[in-house]
Amino acid sequence: MKKLINSADTVVPDALAGMAAAHPGVLSVDLDQRVVYRAVPKEQGRVAIVSGGGSGHEPLHGGFVGAGMLDAACAGEIFTSPVPDQIAAATTAVDRGAGVLHIVKNYTGDIMNFEMAAELVAAESGTQVATVVTADDVAVEDSLYTAGRRGVGVTLIVEKIAGAAAEEGRSLAEVAAVAERVSRAGRSMGMALTSCTVPANGRPSFDLPEDEMEIGIGIHGEPGRHREPVASAAGIAARLVEPVLAELPEGEDHGVIVLLNGMGASPLIELYVVYAEVARLLQAAGVTVERSLVGSYVTSLDMAGCSLTLVRADAEMLRLWDAPVSTPALRWGV
Amino acid sequence: MKKLINSADTVVPDALAGMAAAHPGVLSVDLDQRVVYRAVPKEQGRVAIVSGGGSGHEPLHGGFVGAGMLDAACAGEIFTSPVPDQIAAATTAVDRGAGVLHIVKNYTGDIMNFEMAAELVAAESGTQVATVVTADDVAVEDSLYTAGRRGVGVTLIVEKIAGAAAEEGRSLAEVAAVAERVSRAGRSMGMALTSCTVPANGRPSFDLPEDEMEIGIGIHGEPGRHREPVASAAGIAARLVEPVLAELPEGEDHGVIVLLNGMGASPLIELYVVYAEVARLLQAAGVTVERSLVGSYVTSLDMAGCSLTLVRADAEMLRLWDAPVSTPALRWGV
Repeated sequence: MKKLINSADTVVPDALAGMAAAHPGVLSVDLDQRVVYRAVPKEQGRVAIVSGGGSGHEPLHGGFVGAGMLDAACAGEIFTSPVPDQIAAATTAVDRGAGVLHIVKNYTGDIMNFEMAAELVAAESGTQVATVVTADDVAVEDSLYTAGRRGVGVTLIVEKIAGAAAEEGRSLAEVAAVAERVSRAGRSMGMALTSCTVPANGRPSFDLPEDEMEIGIGIHGEPGRHREPVASAAGIAARLVEPVLAELPEGEDHGVIVLLNGMGASPLIELYVVYAEVARLLQAAGVTVERSLVGSYVTSLDMAGCSLTLVRADAEMLRLWDAPVSTPALRWGV
Repeated sequence: MKKLINSADTVVPDALAGMAAAHPGVLSVDLDQRVVYRAVPKEQGRVAIVSGGGSGHEPLHGGFVGAGMLDAACAGEIFTSPVPDQIAAATTAVDRGAGVLHIVKNYTGDIMNFEMAAELVAAESGTQVATVVTADDVAVEDSLYTAGRRGVGVTLIVEKIAGAAAEEGRSLAEVAAVAERVSRAGRSMGMALTSCTVPANGRPSFDLPEDEMEIGIGIHGEPGRHREPVASAAGIAARLVEPVLAELPEGEDHGVIVLLNGMGASPLIELYVVYAEVARLLQAAGVTVERSLVGSYVTSLDMAGCSLTLVRADAEMLRLWDAPVSTPALRWGV
């Protein structure tokens, strides 16, 4: 295992310390609780948004904390859910009197711990919590850590759009409703050229022969749909676009927001090569690309590969997507 | 070799097609000439800026085309200089009557081809060209492709600051002068955990045992200073900070702009771990970090590793660094 780390045990706190050092004025990091906050808290009376999950998917979620997106992100150990106390602390800290939306990826541990945190908070402080679960991965029905579809790339699109709705001063119910609508409108599928290596394990999570790829991989290296010889970028794009389109909700003439996401070790030049093919296939299928994002946003440590997320986006979603955002990993309009 | 590509021969045009598809309204890509332009050309009377070099370093340079930074970027084949005709075409196309600044990394092929392009343009169209060469890599005196220091990470900082100066309406001589000042004020050093693999070669450019790292690596996999067992992130940070600080120009009480750059295959979580150590070492050395950037900006295909760039930045450089920029890879203030 070759990694830029100090020790397998300290990767998460060390990375959080690096985030704090790299983004003063934007982020404020509670290193004890392992929560990333906005440096400048949101004004009173606005809905706040908390997300989080296992580490190893950076910039998700801490890189999306900032004006127009998340108020706090709770970092678990690598590929391990944050704990209820941590989530409860973050939720209480960011409440500005208008309630808090939890955005949770569909993994059993995350669901359970965010639920427990919501109960803790309700009992202790009376903070109102609403929850939206993302479950966009069409690769498998259930998986190693999931009942139902896994939550992957759509999460960042839900976080961006919900963040913009909260910034507009909408109610908790309204912010939760638009987040839920985005979540339901999104589908994803990923593939891997290589395994990731969890630092504490010290060896690849799975073996993948030098001439094979895994289609439908999860962001923790969970098994996907099948393995096959490595295809061309065009072939890989087809294996992602087709199943995602097949399960993408219809939406009267609505186009899509596209995320072509790198898994962590695939360089940008390769992501652009795949994106050219994705764009071609979507055009051939008569699907209009309204917005696109190409880069490594929902990663799986040092896995090489990519995933595709499509969201069937109505006019309101596009308007909220375009709204100003100022976070370490997404920044525009400000 | 496992890569997300169609074929080794078409990586560059395929990636350019992906850039064009991913950034409509921001970029306009001439796929025949392999030049990335701003979709909305700069207004008349402003100095234009052209850069470029071998591909394989994305987002450098095409990802830095846009308002507040580059007007055009010329893409060569992987690790191969763009040709004079291509650079001349870009230079002529972006000239708005105020002349064009060429920002060139110090590699023999790049220097020669940008020079020939400048001569071609002067002879044919009378466009005034000034040139700034970046040569910030302290690892080696001369190298495989270079007389003198190699040009690496400072290039993006020069491009950002020169771009802002051009946007303010300054003359070609003034824009060139500030670019030159930034270039001289910057020093870099890189390290690799793994080799990159050039698609046309199909195998790693060099062999690096599973327990060793290379200190002082070049962005084309050129040999560095030495090899040694893989150190901790703290140890790696020290091996970069010390030699860079040792050769960093003094600057009466001026702090630094820091770029902690990923080589292509190192995930963001690891870059943050290293950045925490870099920030600690700079603080201990009494060096004030004025601005920082952590991410994969000047890559070497799928090499794992990182590089550190420091620029001794005066107040004007900081003001121009902070000025609005709107490119695919750097965006703020707009």
